[in-house]
Amino acid sequence: MSASTDFRASGVVALTTDFGLSDPYVGMMKGVLLARAPRATIVDVTHGVPAQDVRAGAFFLAHAARYFAPGTVHLAVVDPGVGSSRRLLVAFDRGQAFLAPDNGLLSEVLSAAAEVFELDADAFALEPRSRTFHGRDVLAPSAAALVHGTSSSLLARRPAPDWMRLEPLRPRRAGESVEACVLCVDRYGNLVLAATEDDLPAAPDVCEVVVGDERIAFVATYADAAPGALLALVDSYAALEIAVRDGDAARRLALSPGDRVVIRRRA
Amino acid sequence: MSASTDFRASGVVALTTDFGLSDPYVGMMKGVLLARAPRATIVDVTHGVPAQDVRAGAFFLAHAARYFAPGTVHLAVVDPGVGSSRRLLVAFDRGQAFLAPDNGLLSEVLSAAAEVFELDADAFALEPRSRTFHGRDVLAPSAAALVHGTSSSLLARRPAPDWMRLEPLRPRRAGESVEACVLCVDRYGNLVLAATEDDLPAAPDVCEVVVGDERIAFVATYADAAPGALLALVDSYAALEIAVRDGDAARRLALSPGDRVVIRRRA
Amino acid sequence: MSASTDFRASGVVALTTDFGLSDPYVGMMKGVLLARAPRATIVDVTHGVPAQDVRAGAFFLAHAARYFAPGTVHLAVVDPGVGSSRRLLVAFDRGQAFLAPDNGLLSEVLSAAAEVFELDADAFALEPRSRTFHGRDVLAPSAAALVHGTSSSLLARRPAPDWMRLEPLRPRRAGESVEACVLCVDRYGNLVLAATEDDLPAAPDVCEVVVGDERIAFVATYADAAPGALLALVDSYAALEIAVRDGDAARRLALSPGDRVVIRRRA
Repeated sequence: MSASTDFRASGVVALTTDFGLSDPYVGMMKGVLLARAPRATIVDVTHGVPAQDVRAGAFFLAHAARYFAPGTVHLAVVDPGVGSSRRLLVAFDRGQAFLAPDNGLLSEVLSAAAEVFELDADAFALEPRSRTFHGRDVLAPSAAALVHGTSSSLLARRPAPDWMRLEPLRPRRAGESVEACVLCVDRYGNLVLAATEDDLPAAPDVCEVVVGDERIAFVATYADAAPGALLALVDSYAALEIAVRDGDAARRLALSPGDRVVIRRRA
Repeated sequence: MSASTDFRASGVVALTTDFGLSDPYVGMMKGVLLARAPRATIVDVTHGVPAQDVRAGAFFLAHAARYFAPGTVHLAVVDPGVGSSRRLLVAFDRGQAFLAPDNGLLSEVLSAAAEVFELDADAFALEPRSRTFHGRDVLAPSAAALVHGTSSSLLARRPAPDWMRLEPLRPRRAGESVEACVLCVDRYGNLVLAATEDDLPAAPDVCEVVVGDERIAFVATYADAAPGALLALVDSYAALEIAVRDGDAARRLALSPGDRVVIRRRA
Repeated sequence: MSASTDFRASGVVALTTDFGLSDPYVGMMKGVLLARAPRATIVDVTHGVPAQDVRAGAFFLAHAARYFAPGTVHLAVVDPGVGSSRRLLVAFDRGQAFLAPDNGLLSEVLSAAAEVFELDADAFALEPRSRTFHGRDVLAPSAAALVHGTSSSLLARRPAPDWMRLEPLRPRRAGESVEACVLCVDRYGNLVLAATEDDLPAAPDVCEVVVGDERIAFVATYADAAPGALLALVDSYAALEIAVRDGDAARRLALSPGDRVVIRRRA
């Protein structure tokens, strides 16, 4: 059995997009899904990927997919190249299926064992099909087909071993210290870094993050710092994170995605 | 068979409101729906209609309803007149049902074949009933009744052929050019105009949108413009739209809903 | 039969958190719920509790729970103390179950008849378990167990009669007038007060709210005021509320949660 022929849809369709929730775009996609797969269980991973930020979308999708069961169909859309010649993909990995544009959005979620195909965009698309909303017009009906048990061979046009991967955002070693990038800012103003505990130059309790004049010590959880104090920790993504107890670290430190911080062994 | 006696609920209840998601208002409505119709499949079209903007709500509802199957019950609430003498409506059209205040919210979604009734607000309302939240206290239990297969004759008090329609926002012709109104700004900062391809003075590729000093050419999709460039296109609503490739047109052009732009044949 | 042994899960899991919707945190929790309880019906009460505002969360949960049927499992997370020694709770009341940190979040929803237990955090937790996201790693799998009909005795470690209650925000009487606190600002800019009709010094129609130079009269519903006018009313929470017809009272009056207003009999 291969990853693709092994796929058995559970009925769960998980959506990860940058559509936001102020427009009816997500609702239209759900209408298409329910019209074609009335028993689907639709669940929102998030529609709050920063607009057109494929890298953040790839990160969110990879971390969320771990918590979904085999049989889940993931429909992921952060698609600044919609309507151009970029391909659409259907991939199978660890019992889950993934539908997404071929722009790097699947970079972090797929393992080496994944089977990745170019999606046959014509097989299940709505008619008429817009030039600017393939999430609704192509991916949603294709996801509905997968939920119905349609064979992957009817969705896949050809293998796509050359699917697009983003260059990973790795921390940079500089002598005894490490320079890491802010990957995203969460709803609390916590700064999630593109780095994990393995990137630290030593155990967390002997390290500190340096931002301007601030020296920020690692703790185990938010409540270990005094209210209003800066802290660093290994967060629920297993990423390194800078936070303020009961406060907003992004605002306090004036840091945004793409900014860099230094982590070093404490003196 | 008439549109109303012909209605067969599928169990899908689609919600379109201006309640936002920061308060528990939507959650309360869903609680009422599930308490009375436990097998309902509730789906959010959007709760991000701009506050009290009936026209934007009418546009979102009309465009979203096309993607839902017959049997859907639409519950739509943008209701600045709640608690006043404005009526509530129940309408049937193309196999779908619509519950909404009689304030223009159904203006765009209903076809000439629709059957529209005044809702009997007392038939299924919660007790006690608030003066300010009929979405929860009257419309949600009425929608649950429809999902259960309750006959439309038990929900409808009397025909309402005089239901309120909003005056359409039509583009204005001025010689060779057309003046169109910004209808809404989407999450990407794209400016959706109250105009379609049929309103253009010529084929899109020989037209341009004029905003101040900017001359904006029509393209087929966002990716056809250079990053950061202004573009116009026929969007996924089939409306004319002004966008910036990978950017925010509303901010760049300082335009808001209600502002007008000129579209003309290129010189 | 006791409240706990009497509990029969309907399959509905209602979520009330301060996670927001821009991150995948809510989606991860839903993944865990669906992986362990595939037939659960997950419904969002709101994820827009102001960040780390336990009091607002308690208010939202209490008001929303009234609209949910017996058999509902409420999963509530506003948890600035996550990972510290604060306990987690499982409570049963009026046929519903409640999972939440022991930090006051259940203050308003539970009646005197509630049975409250310390949750056995080890019984159903994910492995590995993060230090900073017990909503996903402990509460969601425990909620899934409840949905499956797991006996409360397997979730509860011991009775917790000393569970934490927040001091209620009561209005203060000062002679003939009452001073009340702004509890929250809703999406429309309406100011919800921590006070009900019972706190008024007289019938609403002979009372007024005083904010700076403004004297604000009570009306029955928003539409009873002129467009743009300030008004006070008993709102859909049965709370006293200050609003602007078709406008934003919080902005107009420059009031925020925690600010106080005076209510008195009109001269």
